[in-house]
Amino acid sequence: MTKVRVAGFSISLDGFGAGPDQSLEDPLGRGGEDLHQWVFPTRTFRTIHGEEGVGTTGLDDNFVRRSFDNVGAWILGRNMFGPVRGPWPDESWKGWWGDNPPYHAPVFVLTHHARPPVEMEGGTIFHFVTGGIEEALDRARAAAGEAADVRIGGGAATIRQYLQTRLIDELHIAISPVLLGEGEPLFAGLDLPALGYQVTAHAASEAATHVIVTRSD
Amino acid sequence: MTKVRVAGFSISLDGFGAGPDQSLEDPLGRGGEDLHQWVFPTRTFRTIHGEEGVGTTGLDDNFVRRSFDNVGAWILGRNMFGPVRGPWPDESWKGWWGDNPPYHAPVFVLTHHARPPVEMEGGTIFHFVTGGIEEALDRARAAAGEAADVRIGGGAATIRQYLQTRLIDELHIAISPVLLGEGEPLFAGLDLPALGYQVTAHAASEAATHVIVTRSD
Repeated sequence: MTKVRVAGFSISLDGFGAGPDQSLEDPLGRGGEDLHQWVFPTRTFRTIHGEEGVGTTGLDDNFVRRSFDNVGAWILGRNMFGPVRGPWPDESWKGWWGDNPPYHAPVFVLTHHARPPVEMEGGTIFHFVTGGIEEALDRARAAAGEAADVRIGGGAATIRQYLQTRLIDELHIAISPVLLGEGEPLFAGLDLPALGYQVTAHAASEAATHVIVTRSD
Repeated sequence: MTKVRVAGFSISLDGFGAGPDQSLEDPLGRGGEDLHQWVFPTRTFRTIHGEEGVGTTGLDDNFVRRSFDNVGAWILGRNMFGPVRGPWPDESWKGWWGDNPPYHAPVFVLTHHARPPVEMEGGTIFHFVTGGIEEALDRARAAAGEAADVRIGGGAATIRQYLQTRLIDELHIAISPVLLGEGEPLFAGLDLPALGYQVTAHAASEAATHVIVTRSD
C-alpha cells in the first residue's frame, strides 16, 4: 500500500516550520535555516549536493535517506516553490533549486495562477495545479503509480490543509532544539488526535527529535 | 547567584502543558498524565512517593532530581493548586498532594481571593498572594533567601505571565512524544527570542527531549 506522506519536515520547539519574512535571500524565512541543522551534515544531503563519500551516518542520515525513498511524485505549496506572489509575471522563476532540483519526479505546485509545466534536468517536472489540494493529490497519485508514495514537501500551510482533510497517512517530523518566536506554525489550532493522528514512533539524535505521526483509520 | 526557574515542566509535541477540562479526577486535564511518563519511573519520583531504592537512573532521573535541588520557595498558579474557582468556599481544599506535599518549602499560590496560610506536614506552607505575579516573586525570593532558587511550578498560564515579564532566568522543559490536540499552550503567541530567551542545552532520552532555555540578558 502506497502512502501519502510528509517526511523530513522540521519544526522549532515553539512549533514553527519556517521563519517569518520569506524572501529571495531567505527562502526559509528569518532563522529558518536553524531548523535544518540536523540535515546538512548527513551523508545523504551531501551526496545530493555533489559531495560523494562524506557526511555523517546514523539516525539523522537514515531519516533523510528514507524521506527520499520510493517517492513517485511531490506536492509543494506555492511559497515553497518560490517567493513570487500573485500572477506569474513571466516564466523565469523555476524554483529555488537550480537546473537540477532534488525531486527527480513530477512535482505538483499548488497555485491560484495557471502556468505551463516546466521540465528541469534530472527528471523533475513542475506542474502547476489551480484546482485545489484534492486535484493536486489525484494528479500526484496518478503520476506516482501503484508502487510509489506521494510526498507532500511543504510548507507548513500546505501540510495543514492536507491534515485537516485527513489526506496524509504518515508524517515524519523533526523537532529542532531552537526557538523561532514567530513564523509558519505547523500544528497550531489543529487537533490532531481528533483528526485521527497519533505518535507511533520516536527517536532522538544529538541534533533533533524525530517523531512519526500516523493516521489510525 | 540564585535563579528564578522553571524545571521539569512537560509539554506535548503540539505545545500543551496540560490537557483540557481539569477536574478533581483529572488534575492534569484530559490526556495530561501522558506528558509526564518520563517522570514516573525515575528513582527520584519513586523515592518522593515512598518507594526507596527502586526506579530508573540516568538522564530523566537527573532532570527530576535537579528540578528539586536548592529550591527555597515555590510559586504556583491557582489552577495548579486545585480545581476550585472563584472565592474559596471554605478552608478545606489543601492542594492535590495530601498531608505531606512534595514542596517542603514555602509555596506562594497566585489567586484573586485572599485566604490565611495553610501549614502542611514536611515543611510546606501554602501562602495565598492576591497582589499579582511580582508580589508573589518578591515574597518567594525573600522566603528563599540569598542562597536558594525560586521555582515556578506552573501551570502554563503562570509560566507565560512570568516569561512575558522576563522574570524567569532559566527553564527546563521536557517535550514528550505525544499529541494532545487541545489544552493549555505554553509557548503559543510568545516570541521567546524577542524576550531574550534561547535554547542553551538539550539532551534526549527514550521518553522525552529535554531543553534548557535561558534568558540571555
